[in-house]
Amino acid sequence: MSRSHEVAMNGARSLFKSLVDAGVTTCFANPGTSEMQLVYEIGLTDAIRPILCLQEDVVTGAADGYGRMKGTPAVALLHVACGFGNGVAMLQNAARANTPIVNVVGVNASYHQANFPEHELVNGRVSDIARVVSHWCGEARSASHLGELGVEAAALAKTGKVCTIVAPNDRHWEEAVPPPTPPPPAGRPRAAAEAIERAAELLANGKKTGLVLGGLALQGEALELAGRIAARTGAVLLAETFPSRYLSRGEGRPPVDLIPYELEIGIKYLESYQQLVFLGARLPVATFAYKDKPTLKSAPGCELFTPASEDQDLETALRSLAEAVDALGTPPIRQARTPASASPSGELTADAIGRTLSELMPADAILVDEAATNAAPIQAATRGARPHDYLNPATGGAIGGGLPMALGAAVACPGRKVVAVQADGSGMYTVHALWSMARENADVVVVVLKNDAYAILGLEMARVREGELNAKMRSMLELGDPALDWVALAKGLGVPASRAGTAEEFHRQFAAAIAEKGPRLIECQVAVPKELLALEEVLHQQR
Amino acid sequence: MSRSHEVAMNGARSLFKSLVDAGVTTCFANPGTSEMQLVYEIGLTDAIRPILCLQEDVVTGAADGYGRMKGTPAVALLHVACGFGNGVAMLQNAARANTPIVNVVGVNASYHQANFPEHELVNGRVSDIARVVSHWCGEARSASHLGELGVEAAALAKTGKVCTIVAPNDRHWEEAVPPPTPPPPAGRPRAAAEAIERAAELLANGKKTGLVLGGLALQGEALELAGRIAARTGAVLLAETFPSRYLSRGEGRPPVDLIPYELEIGIKYLESYQQLVFLGARLPVATFAYKDKPTLKSAPGCELFTPASEDQDLETALRSLAEAVDALGTPPIRQARTPASASPSGELTADAIGRTLSELMPADAILVDEAATNAAPIQAATRGARPHDYLNPATGGAIGGGLPMALGAAVACPGRKVVAVQADGSGMYTVHALWSMARENADVVVVVLKNDAYAILGLEMARVREGELNAKMRSMLELGDPALDWVALAKGLGVPASRAGTAEEFHRQFAAAIAEKGPRLIECQVAVPKELLALEEVLHQQR
Repeated sequence: MSRSHEVAMNGARSLFKSLVDAGVTTCFANPGTSEMQLVYEIGLTDAIRPILCLQEDVVTGAADGYGRMKGTPAVALLHVACGFGNGVAMLQNAARANTPIVNVVGVNASYHQANFPEHELVNGRVSDIARVVSHWCGEARSASHLGELGVEAAALAKTGKVCTIVAPNDRHWEEAVPPPTPPPPAGRPRAAAEAIERAAELLANGKKTGLVLGGLALQGEALELAGRIAARTGAVLLAETFPSRYLSRGEGRPPVDLIPYELEIGIKYLESYQQLVFLGARLPVATFAYKDKPTLKSAPGCELFTPASEDQDLETALRSLAEAVDALGTPPIRQARTPASASPSGELTADAIGRTLSELMPADAILVDEAATNAAPIQAATRGARPHDYLNPATGGAIGGGLPMALGAAVACPGRKVVAVQADGSGMYTVHALWSMARENADVVVVVLKNDAYAILGLEMARVREGELNAKMRSMLELGDPALDWVALAKGLGVPASRAGTAEEFHRQFAAAIAEKGPRLIECQVAVPKELLALEEVLHQQR
Repeated sequence: MSRSHEVAMNGARSLFKSLVDAGVTTCFANPGTSEMQLVYEIGLTDAIRPILCLQEDVVTGAADGYGRMKGTPAVALLHVACGFGNGVAMLQNAARANTPIVNVVGVNASYHQANFPEHELVNGRVSDIARVVSHWCGEARSASHLGELGVEAAALAKTGKVCTIVAPNDRHWEEAVPPPTPPPPAGRPRAAAEAIERAAELLANGKKTGLVLGGLALQGEALELAGRIAARTGAVLLAETFPSRYLSRGEGRPPVDLIPYELEIGIKYLESYQQLVFLGARLPVATFAYKDKPTLKSAPGCELFTPASEDQDLETALRSLAEAVDALGTPPIRQARTPASASPSGELTADAIGRTLSELMPADAILVDEAATNAAPIQAATRGARPHDYLNPATGGAIGGGLPMALGAAVACPGRKVVAVQADGSGMYTVHALWSMARENADVVVVVLKNDAYAILGLEMARVREGELNAKMRSMLELGDPALDWVALAKGLGVPASRAGTAEEFHRQFAAAIAEKGPRLIECQVAVPKELLALEEVLHQQR
């Protein structure tokens, strides 16, 4: 920490010492006046890399991507209630994904808040808004308390929690003692032996069974163990529509199917399952309730059993389960590589994009999926791509996470190529993330799927409307007037970009993009998939 | 409401009927799945104009601009906690400006929330986050309750309140009764006679006095009365740094000085005042507290007296006060038109921009000021412009309000030219507002003041740092790597744009821009004003 030890300890220094001692190395930041002492402190240390973002949605979304890939927290440095507010949506995704994050929010000096300067809220305090998307929230009562909170927040965040430190700025500059010693790493609670036994009985009873994995069960040794169980018992490996953390997939990995998003497609997909066993995953609940429709995607008679939740030790649970079903010696099921075929040609569809990705994504790539209505064909086409990790930001239902998450993943994993498939409507929420990608030379290829609409809403509106959409309704669902020019937007933010009109053009441009280091964007005009339009018609008829 | 009366009443319809009955005509929207029944309802009625925005920060910031200019609420249609979160910063500005707004937030069906689908918060409910930036918040307990809440919210919003209706989507589709009859308009409480008497005594005692105006005292007849009092008593008319609602200024209007933002400049500015009398304004509290600095800008011995707060009837209070000081027959002080001089030439400075605005802004223009560190020279140069209304979004300290506010003002006031002077750092928070301007052909000229930095933070950092800024600190304050290209960004969002490098070029481009209808953007490379750099040096020395 170079100079920082030579002068007296203050609250800002104690806080950053606690975080650095806990292994924090990265700070995504959009600071304001109340964080200057913190910025100064970061500026003095070699131990933390600061990454400036143009809005707090990028700060928090990048911290989410970073934490999911790295498994340890970055700091998200935010400014007062407004800054935290701008970060709420992405923190909602992070909180529901159990991503390790430490938010540090500078607020007005404790003695100044009662003077009601501009930033004070009409009806509450910063901690009131911070709490809703945080598993833990602490406010510094003194400068020394800042260091204590840092120790506590970092330790808890590592277990998969979003932790928020509210830091009045007098606590930054006041004298402090050094932070306390960090606690030993917390272990995760084990699954109950009876629960594992019961799961093993279900897997042995001959019924059609899905093993629904979530959290850390979707990667590494835990996933290998699940692959052994699947090979031994015939159970199918499934994952939530929006898996938390990331999913390792592609060639050689035990294949895991994502449960489809749309309620009716999800119900159809799960209808033959007689049992679903959940390890770190939630029940297949519909994202939204609809009039006179069920809220669970599983069949009415399907048995649902959860031997271990996401907070528990999933690898040990899977090892116990593998042992109980005698699968420890069984080789895991493994995904085969999709053989190289003729490159896609003609119309540029999501499927064609997916096939190019499958052919060209390098091993160890990170695929960030905010393709929304175009996600399913891309997911299907990349099943047998080279081994890669799959991230889906929408764990908390917030849109706009794709570009920030790609930035965060690239920062967390230098040397790995990040490919972000990004729908246009959600991409516009956080388009300014491209600037930070350019600035950090983040190795990200952004593939924008442009259909000039909030296409999912066309489907949802079909459930509600009588007759056809009128022009006024359309005006609230469509984005074509004026058409967004992503090539110009990327240029404005410092990222080289191109436009692909055909599958061949995309293939060529994508090949060129992945051959280089640093951010690239390809704008692809794609139609809404036919399957969705067909479902839209069905839903409208059912109305 | 055309078809909408022909079919049965449901919650969505009852809600919109209550709002339309209250005179609501405009809805800024970024809807999601849970708002489809509401979008459908808007689509069926001719009474409400929907305006789609690409993110909720624009929705809420535009509603703020609209409400400030119109004096009656628009609806901001938002989607679940994430959507509300995205709107928190701009609602914080609106709440602190007492802008009339009705937020409608669709949330999960009441019976589905306990299933904990993606959008549910880990630690609270939507109303917990809504409350902090709302003066009033109600959640629908039934479909009919939606209509009741609409009546209540619209009536309260009109008195200058941000009101939020949380609307579970089963309440949208369930059967409802029509909304109740709206209450008669609420009057504002009058100032106490004793308080007016006391204020009159202060104005007559010969001491140097500032009459600090806020809210509705800064416009119309109230401002005229203040001008009479100033003419009669010699009091100077002042306003908060970030006046709530808007300030009418320019040729023929009683001139009002904005209290400077920076603490030290503000203290210097107010040091000679022996008395400050507040009508609808808050005390001159520093935006931030600094180590060993005062938190009030007024001199230690200055008497501070508030005869009427912003919620009170300020016009009546000013009439009573004018009567008490025998000013009702005194002609108001009036701002003279700045005489046309040679057009600015040479280096493009904020002053040169301000002088061009002063010369060319048409009468009745609306000047939106988010010029940040370049604001003071522009404010000074436009004092004697043609009569115009001045809006400053940062009433709640949130940055990024400029472009959304300009959109909202243009929608509220068709036929009036809107000129937005916009700093680059804050402008990037909400750049996607340009798209809605293009879509609505909003008559806005955006003047981007590009200095490639969060320049105010350079000043604030000078209070903290020892020695010079190092590269790492700079990396958290500066925006030049890569440089933002606002012309390309505007093109990407459908707004014609140009770049001005000299005062002459700006003058010519601005003249061309205001001659046309519809949005235009001019990117201006400007330096940080010398006064600020000088202050930065002083503050650093004082450290």
